[in-house]
Amino acid sequence: MNAEIIAVGSELLLGQIANTNAQFLSKQLANIGVNVFYHTVVGDNSGRLKQAIEVAESRANMIIFTGGLGPTKDDLTKETIASHLGRGLIHDEDALKSIEQFFVTTKRVMTENNRKQALVLEGSQVLPNDHGMAPGMVLEVKERTYMLLPGPPKEMQPMYTAYGETAILNLLQPQDKIVSRVLRFFGIGESLLETEIEDLIDEQQNPTIAPLAADGEVTLRLTAKEKTEELANQLIEATEKKILSRVGQYFYGYDSTSLMQELFNELQKRELTLACAESLTGGLFQQEITSISGAGDVFKGGVVCYATEIKNRVLHVKQETLDTEGAVSSATAIELAENVRELLQADIGISFTGVAGPTEQEGKPVGMVFVGLAIAGRPTEVVQLQLAGTRAGIRVRTVKHGCALLLNSLKDSQNTI
Amino acid sequence: MNAEIIAVGSELLLGQIANTNAQFLSKQLANIGVNVFYHTVVGDNSGRLKQAIEVAESRANMIIFTGGLGPTKDDLTKETIASHLGRGLIHDEDALKSIEQFFVTTKRVMTENNRKQALVLEGSQVLPNDHGMAPGMVLEVKERTYMLLPGPPKEMQPMYTAYGETAILNLLQPQDKIVSRVLRFFGIGESLLETEIEDLIDEQQNPTIAPLAADGEVTLRLTAKEKTEELANQLIEATEKKILSRVGQYFYGYDSTSLMQELFNELQKRELTLACAESLTGGLFQQEITSISGAGDVFKGGVVCYATEIKNRVLHVKQETLDTEGAVSSATAIELAENVRELLQADIGISFTGVAGPTEQEGKPVGMVFVGLAIAGRPTEVVQLQLAGTRAGIRVRTVKHGCALLLNSLKDSQNTI
Repeated sequence: MNAEIIAVGSELLLGQIANTNAQFLSKQLANIGVNVFYHTVVGDNSGRLKQAIEVAESRANMIIFTGGLGPTKDDLTKETIASHLGRGLIHDEDALKSIEQFFVTTKRVMTENNRKQALVLEGSQVLPNDHGMAPGMVLEVKERTYMLLPGPPKEMQPMYTAYGETAILNLLQPQDKIVSRVLRFFGIGESLLETEIEDLIDEQQNPTIAPLAADGEVTLRLTAKEKTEELANQLIEATEKKILSRVGQYFYGYDSTSLMQELFNELQKRELTLACAESLTGGLFQQEITSISGAGDVFKGGVVCYATEIKNRVLHVKQETLDTEGAVSSATAIELAENVRELLQADIGISFTGVAGPTEQEGKPVGMVFVGLAIAGRPTEVVQLQLAGTRAGIRVRTVKHGCALLLNSLKDSQNTI
Repeated sequence: MNAEIIAVGSELLLGQIANTNAQFLSKQLANIGVNVFYHTVVGDNSGRLKQAIEVAESRANMIIFTGGLGPTKDDLTKETIASHLGRGLIHDEDALKSIEQFFVTTKRVMTENNRKQALVLEGSQVLPNDHGMAPGMVLEVKERTYMLLPGPPKEMQPMYTAYGETAILNLLQPQDKIVSRVLRFFGIGESLLETEIEDLIDEQQNPTIAPLAADGEVTLRLTAKEKTEELANQLIEATEKKILSRVGQYFYGYDSTSLMQELFNELQKRELTLACAESLTGGLFQQEITSISGAGDVFKGGVVCYATEIKNRVLHVKQETLDTEGAVSSATAIELAENVRELLQADIGISFTGVAGPTEQEGKPVGMVFVGLAIAGRPTEVVQLQLAGTRAGIRVRTVKHGCALLLNSLKDSQNTI
């Protein structure tokens, strides 16, 4: 089964939004062993959409469309497919009821253009929309499958998960299983990592090894194909072992995990609580940890001490330290970490101070960063970094360094906390 | 000039990353009047890339490639194009020097595979890479333009901005100017907005009006085509006036601005300082305002009072309030806003408390949110919201409501602060 994903929407071609729908669907399809060889994006234009369909038909036996199912004049995906395949559009009674119900639930007035959304391709299986109005569809014509999904990710994703995937699994023939595993590394560059394992990359055919660098991290994707999932997993595990014997000290987790997620897991396992003082990162660390559901188990809170005066007034960094060493200094990072831990009565205090840019501060260069770490019963640690890149990039990587520092510190001291 | 953007990379087809490069380039190309009719994504596979090039050649006279220029075995964009066009690859001396210099600057050891990156298509104009190693290229063959850009956004974006755009502008013939303007709305749904201006959407051909909903906001993109930029702007302004006479109360800004940016501008103009107390949003509001360069002019800092005890210990919300009304309550939001303002000695205190989910809290439902607003010399305001959606969505929209509330509050009181 080879799939192509066609996203319909002029907003994509104008760069108003990124095609995150193709990303989501690709990940899901890879999980069930469906190859995706192409993504296409086309505007709200019937002629060009028709051309894109013809190209896709020449190279895929499953075409998944996202977008263009809404109520407005420029939503024309199902109309174009209907005309291309010579199919009619009929009102689906369930979809119409569901649309009416949606307006009742959200206490809004139903406008006439919403009725158009209940039109579906004749002969198609309707996929209910539990988070919006436009229903999805699956249609088989001449041994080719056409799936139509709505554009808004918050409607498309749950629809695919609840109904779309099952529809595809029912079509799949038994075949080789594809298993993928992503190994995540922090603290090593892509070129160096690849050089360390170059011979493995060259000689490996099954699994394949694909490196990728993003946001200061490097990942290796191992993909194996075998008769059963178990056999494929065995191949992956053997290769993983070889890789980690060489660069294991930079490895931190699998697949879609993150440094923050791993840190959260480790804190939860050890029943430790955390407090945070942020200057240059302005709340980014705390925002990330609290985006994890259940954060309250380990995270108590913290202080965003953005203005220098707040470091003294709220977090009691000595005025002398700020005057002599500066707000961006090892001494300030230490006091921030220790004092936020004490103020919030947490087991661990972590602090971030530095220069995010675009201009220098206190005569210190952009990218100079100090991370402080105060753990109950241990001497306070501080790490100095010199990061390159934009303001946003420096902030993101500062938070990652903080996660890695605390994570390694916890793992190194198996029994002391 | 009709362009197609081809992104090369199996990581895109596996859903590891979204195609943000196509988004960036589309936005830039629209700004200079180049139509983008298709995006294509293809994997690290020479045969399928060749097929994608042939399809693109049938429908575009400019093809822009991103990705596949790196040092590794699966980087094969320029090799495939060279073979397809019958061109040689030659070492570019400047690029080679620049790659060697990159390793000197970053104090890393140059590995042999990096030398491959200095190979360029014979006869092409080389685009220097100031943020990485792989150079870009522009090549004209049979009245068709091929542009090759690296995959990492932090290399691709500055290369396009500094060198790529100029190369394209030099190719463009004088022609009609296309001008786009985006109007941004908050507090009104897409269907209702469209119904309010349906007659305008139907009758307008120039400019066209395209609505789009995302993250709780609705935008209208007006696009006009005229002999000069000035004439196109006049058309847009006349239509904008009609639209705002109907739904102007929900309008907050133009193009790529955000509610937070508008709030920042307003605070800066009035020379007001802000402090923030965050519970359910966990630092998101503060992270967003500090992501704006110059945030220090208006933002002093704040407290992430995630655990209930921190609301009392650090922000002195009365224990009685927490016991009788709860942490998620109008009374707590008021005390948080007033106390964070006082603790940080700011002109304004804003607070967020509520239930982000996935489970209810204190018997209060997911999505119940209180935003408190304490402005010097005025009675403290509090707004209760009931939001739907995921944990992440509730947090994002809570912050937007906070921005809109404070922004409107400031604008309503022209002379009182």
